[in-house]
Amino acid sequence: MNTPDGLRSLRVGLGERAYCIHVGPGLLRRGELLADCLPGGDVLLVSNETVAPFYLETARTTLLGSGRRVETLVLPDGEVHKTLASFGRVVDALASGRFHRDCCVAALGGGVIGDLAGFAAASYQRGVALLQLPTTLLAQVDSSVGGKTAVNHPVGKNLIGAFHQPVGVLADTDTLATLPPREYAAGLAEVIKYGLILDAEFLDWLEHHMPALLERAPAPLAEAIVRSCELKARVVVEDEREHGRRALLNLGHTFGHAIEALAGYGEWLHGEAVAAGMVMAAETSHRLGWLDEASLARVRRLVAAAGLPVAAPHFAPEAMLAAMGMDKKVIGGRLRLVLLEALGRAVVVSDVPRELLLGVLSDVRRAS
Amino acid sequence: MNTPDGLRSLRVGLGERAYCIHVGPGLLRRGELLADCLPGGDVLLVSNETVAPFYLETARTTLLGSGRRVETLVLPDGEVHKTLASFGRVVDALASGRFHRDCCVAALGGGVIGDLAGFAAASYQRGVALLQLPTTLLAQVDSSVGGKTAVNHPVGKNLIGAFHQPVGVLADTDTLATLPPREYAAGLAEVIKYGLILDAEFLDWLEHHMPALLERAPAPLAEAIVRSCELKARVVVEDEREHGRRALLNLGHTFGHAIEALAGYGEWLHGEAVAAGMVMAAETSHRLGWLDEASLARVRRLVAAAGLPVAAPHFAPEAMLAAMGMDKKVIGGRLRLVLLEALGRAVVVSDVPRELLLGVLSDVRRAS
Repeated sequence: MNTPDGLRSLRVGLGERAYCIHVGPGLLRRGELLADCLPGGDVLLVSNETVAPFYLETARTTLLGSGRRVETLVLPDGEVHKTLASFGRVVDALASGRFHRDCCVAALGGGVIGDLAGFAAASYQRGVALLQLPTTLLAQVDSSVGGKTAVNHPVGKNLIGAFHQPVGVLADTDTLATLPPREYAAGLAEVIKYGLILDAEFLDWLEHHMPALLERAPAPLAEAIVRSCELKARVVVEDEREHGRRALLNLGHTFGHAIEALAGYGEWLHGEAVAAGMVMAAETSHRLGWLDEASLARVRRLVAAAGLPVAAPHFAPEAMLAAMGMDKKVIGGRLRLVLLEALGRAVVVSDVPRELLLGVLSDVRRAS
Repeated sequence: MNTPDGLRSLRVGLGERAYCIHVGPGLLRRGELLADCLPGGDVLLVSNETVAPFYLETARTTLLGSGRRVETLVLPDGEVHKTLASFGRVVDALASGRFHRDCCVAALGGGVIGDLAGFAAASYQRGVALLQLPTTLLAQVDSSVGGKTAVNHPVGKNLIGAFHQPVGVLADTDTLATLPPREYAAGLAEVIKYGLILDAEFLDWLEHHMPALLERAPAPLAEAIVRSCELKARVVVEDEREHGRRALLNLGHTFGHAIEALAGYGEWLHGEAVAAGMVMAAETSHRLGWLDEASLARVRRLVAAAGLPVAAPHFAPEAMLAAMGMDKKVIGGRLRLVLLEALGRAVVVSDVPRELLLGVLSDVRRAS
């Protein structure tokens, strides 16, 4: 759907858990879109200290316009705060505020706020409504869509969480104007990912439009977000709880989570680690004879063109492998990896030779 | 199903989440029953300091017999430990032990351990298998069946949790031998509840067999457990996530939770509070003209015969009402109560006059 005011909408067809994703400018002021999604009760609007000064008041005013009680909770910013303790703070706000089962948690921020507030919404009273108001590119194209919520554990990322679909996603593209360049590029990593795993044509499109995307030109940006959401929604509808095909969305993530863990959470942005991880996955696919030299070079070039890292720091390969072993994608102790049979066609593989992996981890490293 | 060795089994038909409940003596030693339920991975066996000395080694040995790695975690006993902090300890054990997605959390204990370990199983890696090994009557007839998991919050009971069905329930009736009389009676409260809300014939049966049940005679006890599980399973299959009919299972619980909260968690056993709550619900039903004097007297008599309280302490009625207001059964700020149209027929009501309720709360009180 495409309307004159720049609003584009798509539906994630999950039966009784179906919901709409709206993408466009000025959505945080569009009370009618909010009202369409929300259940009848009060709203807890959760944000962080970086995003709140820009958009909290706008979102709050729009929500208040629907006649609901709206309370706000502003948490510290950053991946290091995506913890069980912060989850406890959101739940405390809900319980102390005597929010009932028909309430809604609205997550205004990036992936951390969405995952954290989302897990609180999943768990409070065994599940209340969640409205995603993503304000980063990464959250708009990835983390706000699909129902994965979680917090980190010192042992690994996203180890504690739930599948909990939102009642709606409103991606206000105006909010991307204030996004720091590094965060913006991190979001592009997930956009590139969709092309790599599912859609070679979209990958071509990205190669042509990367300069415009880096300038945040409204039309190509909205197009990139909508196409990313469409691709993600298609996979989520096929496999909501990641028993199979949904694992493809983790291209670069097993490598990436290991980079994040070894570097110390918060040092690398998630999207940056995924970017380097995708190059590692492409390199592995190349060494397995699946991806030719030219395709591998295209991956590396596109990642670099987005301003993203194409290699990881100088971590010991054995340490990386160990860190990858704790990734959730491991089943029964065997390491499963998402690799590329071709550009636009990903597969899950569980029998990559250890020596080949160590070779990749040893070679795809940034000079330190 | 009824076999010579006393094993009785029933199936909770929840599609891809279907599972078996086994009831009978010596089940903790029956490796083949465990193996039937379990996925392929490691097991974290969670218990408490009261139950562990009696049954942990038996359960551990049986689980080890299946060739799996089995780790144990023993938590302090009691409702006061059903907290987010204890939940964190179970998750810590899973993460530090590097348990993978195909692992299983086995909950050996009463309702607290089942709810707590159950919520950890629901949340670790966004959901791993849960095996219920209930060792109290209450857990065997109620909390281990139906997939509700939760921890308490200072503001209210079970405010943080998930719906997460177990892969199996093994109710070893031998474990009831060591159950203190007060805990045993608390379990009978939930048994009586099933008769009151769903099955007048079962209620008759209970009136006749209460002396034998109090002596823990094996045959009537197994019969009471199996019939309770059958009744609960029927409701859960109709309404897994409590959008409607499942609320009937909360007869006496809104009153009961208020009693527990005002008395201070841990003072009253859950079943004791539910027992008094059921008498209050019956009294309310009587004053609404639904339950005649004789039926009300039967409820009070049966509850008393089980050694359970038929009234609450001398709390101020207004304080009780306020505590009931935070109960999860409240929708949009309106108090919904489960009441009895007749013995064996419960309904959810949302328009009980406040004055009538205050009258009941004022009258159904224990002399202090």
